[in-house]
Amino acid sequence: MKKLINRPEDVVREALEGVAAAHPDLVRVTYDPAVIVRADAPVQGKVGIVSGGGSGHEPMHGAFVGMGMLDAACPGEVFTSPTPDQMLAATQAVDGGAGVLHIVKNYTGDILNFEMAAELAGAEGIPVEAVVTNDDVAVQDSLYTAGRRGVGVTVLAEKITGAAAEEGRDLATVAELCRRVNANGRSMGMALTSCIVPAAGVPTFELADDEMEIGIGIHGEPGRERLKVEPAHDVVRRLAEPILEDLPFSSGDDVLAFVNGMGGTPDLELYIVYNELRKLLDAGGVRIARNLVGSYITSLEMAGCSITLLKLDDELTRLWDAPVKTAGLRWGA
Amino acid sequence: MKKLINRPEDVVREALEGVAAAHPDLVRVTYDPAVIVRADAPVQGKVGIVSGGGSGHEPMHGAFVGMGMLDAACPGEVFTSPTPDQMLAATQAVDGGAGVLHIVKNYTGDILNFEMAAELAGAEGIPVEAVVTNDDVAVQDSLYTAGRRGVGVTVLAEKITGAAAEEGRDLATVAELCRRVNANGRSMGMALTSCIVPAAGVPTFELADDEMEIGIGIHGEPGRERLKVEPAHDVVRRLAEPILEDLPFSSGDDVLAFVNGMGGTPDLELYIVYNELRKLLDAGGVRIARNLVGSYITSLEMAGCSITLLKLDDELTRLWDAPVKTAGLRWGA
Repeated sequence: MKKLINRPEDVVREALEGVAAAHPDLVRVTYDPAVIVRADAPVQGKVGIVSGGGSGHEPMHGAFVGMGMLDAACPGEVFTSPTPDQMLAATQAVDGGAGVLHIVKNYTGDILNFEMAAELAGAEGIPVEAVVTNDDVAVQDSLYTAGRRGVGVTVLAEKITGAAAEEGRDLATVAELCRRVNANGRSMGMALTSCIVPAAGVPTFELADDEMEIGIGIHGEPGRERLKVEPAHDVVRRLAEPILEDLPFSSGDDVLAFVNGMGGTPDLELYIVYNELRKLLDAGGVRIARNLVGSYITSLEMAGCSITLLKLDDELTRLWDAPVKTAGLRWGA
Repeated sequence: MKKLINRPEDVVREALEGVAAAHPDLVRVTYDPAVIVRADAPVQGKVGIVSGGGSGHEPMHGAFVGMGMLDAACPGEVFTSPTPDQMLAATQAVDGGAGVLHIVKNYTGDILNFEMAAELAGAEGIPVEAVVTNDDVAVQDSLYTAGRRGVGVTVLAEKITGAAAEEGRDLATVAELCRRVNANGRSMGMALTSCIVPAAGVPTFELADDEMEIGIGIHGEPGRERLKVEPAHDVVRRLAEPILEDLPFSSGDDVLAFVNGMGGTPDLELYIVYNELRKLLDAGGVRIARNLVGSYITSLEMAGCSITLLKLDDELTRLWDAPVKTAGLRWGA
């Protein structure tokens, strides 16, 4: 294992120290329990938005804390759920009197721990609504999941609900919006290489020099099938067609097309994937009204990509376009 | 070789098609010759800023085209200089009557081709000034260079001169500013793995499973020494100390600290590197007034990082903070 780290057990804490030092204008960091909180939290009268999960998926979630997106993120150890006390501390820190939304990716540990934190917060008089994202069409159940996994849609939901909360919408409305984003979004990913979890020191899985895994999970969980590597044109078809059929997306739909790198894939390749995707969608009459191309929900240094499509309406588009100021996404302000 | 591409010979063109499709609000792309031009170029009365070089270093330079940064970028084939006709076309496209600055990284091919383009543009009555960046302290001469290589400072120079041009400064002033940024900036990089150039199909160099290369170039050119892998704490010392000694930076200096990923290194590791760097600088009395942490000048999927320090003054700080709106850097507008 070759990584730019000190001791594997210190990876998350030391990275958090780096984040705190680099972005004091955006966030403050607490360590016991570990929470990344928006610098000006709690914002009085605003619904607080909290997400979290295992580390190793950066910039998600910590770099999405800031104006117009998350109020707090709870970083677990690498690929390990954060604990209920992290989520409770985050919820307390961002409660501005309008309640708190938990955005939870569908993994068993995350679900259980966020539920426990929500109960504890509720007992303290903080109203919490939780929305689970489960947009990955690759497999029905998986290694860490009952039902579909939550992946790329989570990034989009954090941006869109963050904008709505910033506008002063109430908790029920923001939660309903989050469910709508999840209901209208679908994703699928693939890998060319495994990643190495620092504490494990060896690859999570083995792929031959001429193989790829279609439908991979963001922790390297098995996907749909292992195939010989194909040109980008064919890889995109294998990811996009199951997504299009699942919702289904139809000719005339406006979508946000999100091409995501898994961590070890250069932008050059992501734009080739985007180019193939837009040709495929054009051919089917699906219009890309907005796009996001880059590595936003990663699996450490895994090489590969995922595609997420979100069916847009005027409200979702407007909230996507609203100002955001975080380390990972920033525009309009 | 496993990459998300179609034919290796189509990599750059297809990625450019993806960029054009994803960012029509920011850029337009021409293909013969290949140039990425700011969507609203030429901006009348503004100095035009052009850079370029081999592809494979994304987001540099193409994703730095837009308001407050570059007016055009010339993408060569992967790790290959663009041709004089690309640079001439870029210069013509961005000339708004106030002349054009060429920002050229110090590699022999880039220098020759930009010189030829400047002569041709001059013959057409377009005043051109060229500034060469050569901030890499690792080696004096290298595989593709007489003198030091131009690396991370180039990103900072593009941002800072872009802001000055936006304010309406004249060509001589903007060029002088670019020389000042280069004179006050120093960099050094390292690699844990090689990258694979698509047209070659094999790693550019071989590194053993327990080795790193200190002082690597952004095309995988040999550095200072090959060593056993060390903790991040020691790696940062090996990069930062030669940088600090070279300018030299002194106690009391304000700096912009830029921790750059080579492409295959997760953000988690870059923030650990940043954390080590700020502790080292703190101990020496050097104050980090601004920072940039992320993968901005890459070597395809190479794992590794570079550190760039730029000594700041009030003017450089103000121009760094000025609004920028590009695919790769965006804030304040």
